[in-house]
Amino acid sequence: MSAEIVDGKKIAEKIRKNVAFEIQKLKLKYNIEPNITTIKIGNNPESNIYLKLRDTACEKVGIKPKNIELPESVSEEEIINLISRLNEDKKVHGILIQFPIPKHLSSDKLINTLNPKKDVEGLTPLNMGKTIVGDEYIVPCTPLAILKILEEEKIRLQGKDVVIINHSNIVGKPLTALFLNRNATVSVTHVFTKDLKKYTIGADILISASGIPKLINKEHIKPDAFVIDVGIIKTSDGVTGDVDFESVKNIAGKITPVPGGVGPVTVACSLVNMAKTFRNCMEK
Amino acid sequence: MSAEIVDGKKIAEKIRKNVAFEIQKLKLKYNIEPNITTIKIGNNPESNIYLKLRDTACEKVGIKPKNIELPESVSEEEIINLISRLNEDKKVHGILIQFPIPKHLSSDKLINTLNPKKDVEGLTPLNMGKTIVGDEYIVPCTPLAILKILEEEKIRLQGKDVVIINHSNIVGKPLTALFLNRNATVSVTHVFTKDLKKYTIGADILISASGIPKLINKEHIKPDAFVIDVGIIKTSDGVTGDVDFESVKNIAGKITPVPGGVGPVTVACSLVNMAKTFRNCMEK
Repeated sequence: MSAEIVDGKKIAEKIRKNVAFEIQKLKLKYNIEPNITTIKIGNNPESNIYLKLRDTACEKVGIKPKNIELPESVSEEEIINLISRLNEDKKVHGILIQFPIPKHLSSDKLINTLNPKKDVEGLTPLNMGKTIVGDEYIVPCTPLAILKILEEEKIRLQGKDVVIINHSNIVGKPLTALFLNRNATVSVTHVFTKDLKKYTIGADILISASGIPKLINKEHIKPDAFVIDVGIIKTSDGVTGDVDFESVKNIAGKITPVPGGVGPVTVACSLVNMAKTFRNCMEK
Repeated sequence: MSAEIVDGKKIAEKIRKNVAFEIQKLKLKYNIEPNITTIKIGNNPESNIYLKLRDTACEKVGIKPKNIELPESVSEEEIINLISRLNEDKKVHGILIQFPIPKHLSSDKLINTLNPKKDVEGLTPLNMGKTIVGDEYIVPCTPLAILKILEEEKIRLQGKDVVIINHSNIVGKPLTALFLNRNATVSVTHVFTKDLKKYTIGADILISASGIPKLINKEHIKPDAFVIDVGIIKTSDGVTGDVDFESVKNIAGKITPVPGGVGPVTVACSLVNMAKTFRNCMEK
């Protein structure tokens, strides 16, 4: 038995087509070009790669991306003033802050300054709260991508045993809510978990976003499990994920590869959210 | 070995003392009486009992409770207009909607109308979002009560295996976030869970809020586990919880009884939140 490999690029393309159609419709209706602005602070090489990919994806769906680049040394006050100006600017239809940000800045403070209507990544408390209570509107991109993959693969979530390795605000917590909203049973594990294998071995669906190369091998997997690998880690051997692909490929039922799995779908889901903030800003 | 029984009334009294001090301080500072208004719709006998308990507790800490009673047949529009008036009224320092509400009304719509500053139960998306991302301010009363009990019992949460039976917006979801914010490993189970025992048997801390009398017995419990019973169910034999107390009392390490466990602490936590909304309304 060999695991089916999920084609993230194909799913991403399908999502992009829908977004391109939506953007085209809004442009015609309002006769305006969407302006989605990304604030980039400092010079993180992984951010540069991601932004390049996203900018290309934006252009494919008719969004001209704008990036404001700030030096590593910028003060919190300056960024907060910038965000406030972008919040008020009627010509700006969406704002992203590119993470990670330098250590002297508080990501909470910056996120809390964002106008929820323009919050492309769905990270403001208001958008997060809506996701949690099941009124899902602007959902953070990585959790949304995982949901889209499961939908595309026609996985019924109700009653499934799901294990998530990650408890961050950006991935683990909103993802937990998305699964609970669909009546899955969810276990959330992380670096403080005493016995990870005890959890993973029971998972119908295992989502690993630890950032630890090859954390997950065949000993962690229930036969026929759906394994979703969110890790993207640069090693001397190239890019790898959380999952030891060779080890699990004969046990898992389905698996998302790295690269070419969750990554491209996450970029596509960022476009989905851009279309939503664009619509938010145009509709009263 | 016999489980230690947690004294919820004692914990509640300690919390009430702190709230009474806080309320007294705010009254002196602003020379004003707090006005916390509860909207009660229809005539639910369990709500009547709870409100009576809470009104008594309010008076003990210096809050004069106000209840607005509406008939079962009231329209959604009328209640939304009422909430909007209370939101604007500078003499009102906190608003609660007493659940359950009649079926023709949407609890989401009513909650979304509340001014987050006056949201005593912490259920608006903004307050919920803050709880989720770890910026805990007005936390829903039952999850807050569970946290207070664990704090009073000096339980270190980091790395603990926690199992919650409930995935509602009011209990399970915010409680999950509170535990994740403290680096516990959390499993969330519910009526759609395939094999409940598989989860509960591994729990260092088990929180049951199913509303099913005696769902949990000794077969579900790991020796020495902390069992928190959130159920309050009226049966022909009187009030009972989710947990078969006689069955588990020789296996669990600690257990909250019903009545006299989570219930009184939840009432006290409601007062904690009233003090917070009172402060919110007075401070600019």
